[in-house]
Amino acid sequence: MTLDPRPEMDPRHTARLTISCPDQRGIVAAVSQFLHNHGANIIHSDQHSTDPQGGTFYMRMEFHLDGLDLAKGQFERAFQQVVAEPFGMEWRVWYTAEPKRMAILVSQYDHCFLDLLWRRRRGELDVTIPMVVSNHEALRRDAEMFDIPFHVVPVRKDSKPQAEAEQLALLKGQCDFVVLARYMQILSGDFLREVGVPVINIHHSFLPAFIGANPYRAAHVRGVKLVGATAHYVTEELDAGPIIEQDVARVTHRETPETLMRLGRDVERQVLARAVKAHVEDRVLVHGNKTVVF
Amino acid sequence: MTLDPRPEMDPRHTARLTISCPDQRGIVAAVSQFLHNHGANIIHSDQHSTDPQGGTFYMRMEFHLDGLDLAKGQFERAFQQVVAEPFGMEWRVWYTAEPKRMAILVSQYDHCFLDLLWRRRRGELDVTIPMVVSNHEALRRDAEMFDIPFHVVPVRKDSKPQAEAEQLALLKGQCDFVVLARYMQILSGDFLREVGVPVINIHHSFLPAFIGANPYRAAHVRGVKLVGATAHYVTEELDAGPIIEQDVARVTHRETPETLMRLGRDVERQVLARAVKAHVEDRVLVHGNKTVVF
Amino acid sequence: MTLDPRPEMDPRHTARLTISCPDQRGIVAAVSQFLHNHGANIIHSDQHSTDPQGGTFYMRMEFHLDGLDLAKGQFERAFQQVVAEPFGMEWRVWYTAEPKRMAILVSQYDHCFLDLLWRRRRGELDVTIPMVVSNHEALRRDAEMFDIPFHVVPVRKDSKPQAEAEQLALLKGQCDFVVLARYMQILSGDFLREVGVPVINIHHSFLPAFIGANPYRAAHVRGVKLVGATAHYVTEELDAGPIIEQDVARVTHRETPETLMRLGRDVERQVLARAVKAHVEDRVLVHGNKTVVF
Amino acid sequence: MTLDPRPEMDPRHTARLTISCPDQRGIVAAVSQFLHNHGANIIHSDQHSTDPQGGTFYMRMEFHLDGLDLAKGQFERAFQQVVAEPFGMEWRVWYTAEPKRMAILVSQYDHCFLDLLWRRRRGELDVTIPMVVSNHEALRRDAEMFDIPFHVVPVRKDSKPQAEAEQLALLKGQCDFVVLARYMQILSGDFLREVGVPVINIHHSFLPAFIGANPYRAAHVRGVKLVGATAHYVTEELDAGPIIEQDVARVTHRETPETLMRLGRDVERQVLARAVKAHVEDRVLVHGNKTVVF
Repeated sequence: MTLDPRPEMDPRHTARLTISCPDQRGIVAAVSQFLHNHGANIIHSDQHSTDPQGGTFYMRMEFHLDGLDLAKGQFERAFQQVVAEPFGMEWRVWYTAEPKRMAILVSQYDHCFLDLLWRRRRGELDVTIPMVVSNHEALRRDAEMFDIPFHVVPVRKDSKPQAEAEQLALLKGQCDFVVLARYMQILSGDFLREVGVPVINIHHSFLPAFIGANPYRAAHVRGVKLVGATAHYVTEELDAGPIIEQDVARVTHRETPETLMRLGRDVERQVLARAVKAHVEDRVLVHGNKTVVF
Repeated sequence: MTLDPRPEMDPRHTARLTISCPDQRGIVAAVSQFLHNHGANIIHSDQHSTDPQGGTFYMRMEFHLDGLDLAKGQFERAFQQVVAEPFGMEWRVWYTAEPKRMAILVSQYDHCFLDLLWRRRRGELDVTIPMVVSNHEALRRDAEMFDIPFHVVPVRKDSKPQAEAEQLALLKGQCDFVVLARYMQILSGDFLREVGVPVINIHHSFLPAFIGANPYRAAHVRGVKLVGATAHYVTEELDAGPIIEQDVARVTHRETPETLMRLGRDVERQVLARAVKAHVEDRVLVHGNKTVVF
Repeated sequence: MTLDPRPEMDPRHTARLTISCPDQRGIVAAVSQFLHNHGANIIHSDQHSTDPQGGTFYMRMEFHLDGLDLAKGQFERAFQQVVAEPFGMEWRVWYTAEPKRMAILVSQYDHCFLDLLWRRRRGELDVTIPMVVSNHEALRRDAEMFDIPFHVVPVRKDSKPQAEAEQLALLKGQCDFVVLARYMQILSGDFLREVGVPVINIHHSFLPAFIGANPYRAAHVRGVKLVGATAHYVTEELDAGPIIEQDVARVTHRETPETLMRLGRDVERQVLARAVKAHVEDRVLVHGNKTVVF
Repeated sequence: MTLDPRPEMDPRHTARLTISCPDQRGIVAAVSQFLHNHGANIIHSDQHSTDPQGGTFYMRMEFHLDGLDLAKGQFERAFQQVVAEPFGMEWRVWYTAEPKRMAILVSQYDHCFLDLLWRRRRGELDVTIPMVVSNHEALRRDAEMFDIPFHVVPVRKDSKPQAEAEQLALLKGQCDFVVLARYMQILSGDFLREVGVPVINIHHSFLPAFIGANPYRAAHVRGVKLVGATAHYVTEELDAGPIIEQDVARVTHRETPETLMRLGRDVERQVLARAVKAHVEDRVLVHGNKTVVF
């Protein structure tokens, strides 16, 4: 047996450019001409227009840095001036040599949490994990097994603002995005504004939807034949942010609330992992309250 | 090429017995002993208890009539006396020699409707179709192609009670169950009580759920990554009756409300067909507002 | 209820350009610049490179003809000279105003056949169907119900070359592609060369694979837990041509060869319909014995 | 947040009875009468007949021990005499108070291995894990993290019989079944006979099937649109033993052999976990080279 002969993630230096702007003629020509003129070889390119007449145009391009005649910084300035400004673009470039920093918030459920740690160790997620912040001690040993700093910030009803301040002190400037890997506390709008980076959450979903304190019990009472999970960016409105990924599993009349929960866990960790991977690879572009996932 | 050498449906005479009663010791022993004593050979048997302590017990048995020493009628009387009464059972026996009569209510969408007609012709659904009732002329030619009587009962806002009376006059006593194959009118509680047989409906479902006049457009606005469908028995509370079957299809940011609708149609007809087949074969037992599907 | 307010297929004039060539720098820039210079507004664009170093580049672009300053014919000549030749491209342009002509070959199974006819009637498949050719009379009435010419060319072991000649006389020049909708005769290499258009087939697939005369019976003997179907372009090597689409359905120990066949039918018609739709919309580009499906 | 209020696995004492015998009248009556007479309350019951005429009958019953008037040992003797012998049954009873002992053989891939350890910790798999045996040191730390004894038995081409003898010395009598969690060595027929307990394996599957040293590369060359995995009992014929569970994931032309492998890993661990869970709960009955999975 031999392990994977070469890692899945490209060791060569590449960059990813994501763009959004009002749809108009000539965008693709301008972007590809710019990259071509400066020696970048495009590896992947995806584009989407919400409507060719008055819609928004989204684009993701992945290109090699090998032949590029512009250094980091130069590229950004030139692109802004030559392409972005004339088309009114919002845009961003990520260099794959700099893996994103993923902070994890977690409570006591371990399934999503361990799945992320495993995938990162295996090289499936190209991230560093600067820290895990939990409101419980329960998962400390797991985090330490993976050599990840583990901080406990207890959250009580009357101490939430103080707890969020403590969390922000840990997170601010130390991460490029946050994953709520079954973090069982609601984050305030102030926290979301302050933390300043995207926050990804996973929650269960059902057909039809159930809300409230114990959705698996509600789903059991209703007799659903599918349980599901939704990964989304967190906004101030609970569980209503832009959806990144969803999936379901079949269930039968044999299930108890406990087996529904177990089957739900399997869906949750898969859906969250796919959403996080898409985010890490700059495949998710937010369009209002929706996403374009390339 | 040869066609299926023998039809899927067993040409031999069999019967299906469905039972529900408070769970208690000795039910299976009593039922199987009774059948054994009277020479019935059990082909399939399924059972489910919602809770062994104080729950409800459900059972479905399929058995050959070949060796049975009781004629139709005799069997029912003997079973009622010897087994059903002591255990407080609700029960029913269906003889496969007598296919169920399925009435269809439909409006203008043809996908669920044609799928049912095709499956019946192919021998997948062991039913007769005594009639189709529609509030439009649109699908008359399709029904006639399959030699099925097609009745139009127009429904206008102010004539609904009269229309329902006309529908009931057609349906009552002429069918064993009704399928709403995308019938776009809400049936009144009075109609449901009067018609006196199970009514199966199909509706779209999403994660999270969307309601209202144009759910596919609402789903598009929300940016879901799955579209789904739910088949259920109709109760007076709209779309809240016992769920029989559900499924979903994956969708992307590329969809328009129109393509969502198209993908949804494929799920709808599959889900409805599976639900109808399960009902026809007496696999669906209703437990409060849930179903046991054997 | 109202039917779909506007058809899914764009009534406006658009065209689809598909390209393949050795991967090299500047392709996207050249193509998009050409289209931009001539006033075409790109609606969709997909691209794929099998390997940025020495691989093959594939591209599909969909654009509006409204602002285009080149007439049909002019466009082709200009594109060939300005873009295609310098990059060594194989390419094609399809105008959506001219729906593809789909001929169907079928035997006695009706499930794939009816599904295609119905999807075309629904407007899901933007094709005309100039003819159905069958080796049996069985499906004549269905074809006629959809107003499609139905030709019977009987095939006997000793008359195959003659039968193929008869089929070719019907098909040649009359269709843009052929669908084998469960056509139970093997087509010769000569036929495939002569007919000169792509031929799409559907066959069952399993994990592990079964071949031979009765694969559903073999699958039953092996006790598989999944049945599947594969749609592919037909090549001289039986069932080994480029795969367009695949899917599976779950099965259990309860299945008989007959129920496996029924469940397989549902997968077959879905997989074939998706493959045909992708082909019709010029989303399938063949790369050696594989496909790129945009 | 509270963790699951009660564990999924029933803490009450129950037992599971599995039976197979030639199908004949009166089996269910005899078994259920016996259990009823001795005060056992049946919680679940499943049965299957491969053919009511001359087939084999399979049954699984789960019942409470609370009211049972026979002690362990007594039950077995009485059942053998009163029920099993007259019907020529093969049968077995498992008491849930005695979790099965699961030994794991593993090489260097960690995905299936970690998933099993974690599910056991979560309480999803009611097993003890007396040991892990590997031909590599790679996963020692993971095993130790879960407090599981880890033994390394290196395997070289010329030392295989000796290595298998060493493995047998560790395993024999110490486990109730063995899981090959991506163990990359072929076990000899002698080993399988000697170890004397069921051995479960996971391998990749494709449509169509690929065999040989690097199936993911072969699948990539063929351009499949699905990757899959099959869990099966190991027999002397490589990868041809009775199938317990299968599943697939969708893939596209974008995949490399590496991403196919990654997507395959997710399917492998899910399929293996479901198969192991079914085995642990005595839901899998082997019928020749097939399985009945209740």
